Amino acid sequence: MIQITIIGSGNVAQHLIKAFDASKTVEIKQVFSRNKEALSHLVAYEKIVSDYSELQTADLHIIAVSDNAISEVSEQLPFNNQFVVHTSGTSPIDVLDEKNRRGVFYPLQTFSKSKNVDYSVIPFCLEAENTVDFKLLESVAKSISTAVYLINSEQRKALHVAAVFVNNFTNHLYQIGQEICEENQVPFAILRPLIQETADKINTLDPNEAQTGPAKREDSNTINAHLAFLEDENKKNIYKILTQSIQDNGKKL
Amino acid sequence: MIQITIIGSGNVAQHLIKAFDASKTVEIKQVFSRNKEALSHLVAYEKIVSDYSELQTADLHIIAVSDNAISEVSEQLPFNNQFVVHTSGTSPIDVLDEKNRRGVFYPLQTFSKSKNVDYSVIPFCLEAENTVDFKLLESVAKSISTAVYLINSEQRKALHVAAVFVNNFTNHLYQIGQEICEENQVPFAILRPLIQETADKINTLDPNEAQTGPAKREDSNTINAHLAFLEDENKKNIYKILTQSIQDNGKKL
Repeated sequence: MIQITIIGSGNVAQHLIKAFDASKTVEIKQVFSRNKEALSHLVAYEKIVSDYSELQTADLHIIAVSDNAISEVSEQLPFNNQFVVHTSGTSPIDVLDEKNRRGVFYPLQTFSKSKNVDYSVIPFCLEAENTVDFKLLESVAKSISTAVYLINSEQRKALHVAAVFVNNFTNHLYQIGQEICEENQVPFAILRPLIQETADKINTLDPNEAQTGPAKREDSNTINAHLAFLEDENKKNIYKILTQSIQDNGKKL
Repeated sequence: MIQITIIGSGNVAQHLIKAFDASKTVEIKQVFSRNKEALSHLVAYEKIVSDYSELQTADLHIIAVSDNAISEVSEQLPFNNQFVVHTSGTSPIDVLDEKNRRGVFYPLQTFSKSKNVDYSVIPFCLEAENTVDFKLLESVAKSISTAVYLINSEQRKALHVAAVFVNNFTNHLYQIGQEICEENQVPFAILRPLIQETADKINTLDPNEAQTGPAKREDSNTINAHLAFLEDENKKNIYKILTQSIQDNGKKL
């Protein structure tokens, strides 16, 4: 069994604990959390430590904390020349203290505490400084997912920016859609199948082929009617910029 | 059997023909198309007419043509006081010529010719000028879908604007995500599960609850790193505006 220690108690840490718990090739050795109670429903109490001096070495140490804490946490680890990874999409591998062998274990997914996630389809983007460590990381990722990729720090940065567009910004467009519905006494539920279909299409169509709508059709009557309908300056502005961008894109292709 | 005539040969017309074909309570009486060959794979040749004078009356006449042609097509119909509807999300009911009884039969969905659609989950937004006509329209919609709504012209306008945000603009964000991946030698396939999960979440979570990411977290280090990474002015601009909008939204809640 590969022994893993997880440092952190947030969303990503908790999801990883659950996923490894169900895996048969990986064992959680310790979990570091300032607040032991926060994890007591997920991990045997005796495995939770809240002081760095209690941390023992394992085959792999996963730092799952917020981006700006990774560097400091990695310095606090009470051992050298062990294998330590972070789970961040934005941070390069070298934010980790170089006293240990470094790597990245980035699950490209959006984690809400209140929703369960099927780990087996989540892409894991891995990086390590040497082949032996990479192989270990690959085994660990494959124990919970079927989609495992070797992605270097520069590629990961691109991926994270792209993920912000397709996830965070997309969700914000859903939010705007919901606001427009509510302001006009229309049930937002009517839009759910469309949201689903828009995402499903991408499994079989290239986004360029899948593009429809007034911007794509250069239908200026509809575009102007929509802009007149939107009273909120912010929504108007977003409408204009995305319409323009779709039209510019059409000209590039 | 309710008898229906469809006027038009585009995406929506073709999808409706397929859906009604599979229904047991509705029969297609005639289809009007300038180009008979375009529909010969979907409809018996003798049902296709290409001259308005050949159109007979039916229980319901569905005009499925582009928005700016609805008005003229409705004037050309060679009968009066029949039930005529259009399928547009943007056009009000009164673009239809008032010589006939009017209504709207708007399937809120994105139709690509190259992808099959499960009609049973597509919301149909219906409007009619009197109760008897509305009931007929409701029967027709229920023969192919389980999601049927009474939506007036003002609500439909809101719905269509909201649909542009959650469908057309969302798809454009996928397109931007794909460009960022390709420019950095990252397979876009890595993002597909995230796109799927982002949409799936909306079935169980409110978009406000589902919002994650650097904008929501007010993580200005990551935001600045992303802006520095994005060289293209258009992408930078979209990133800034949507980030700002997420942050303003957080303050309103």
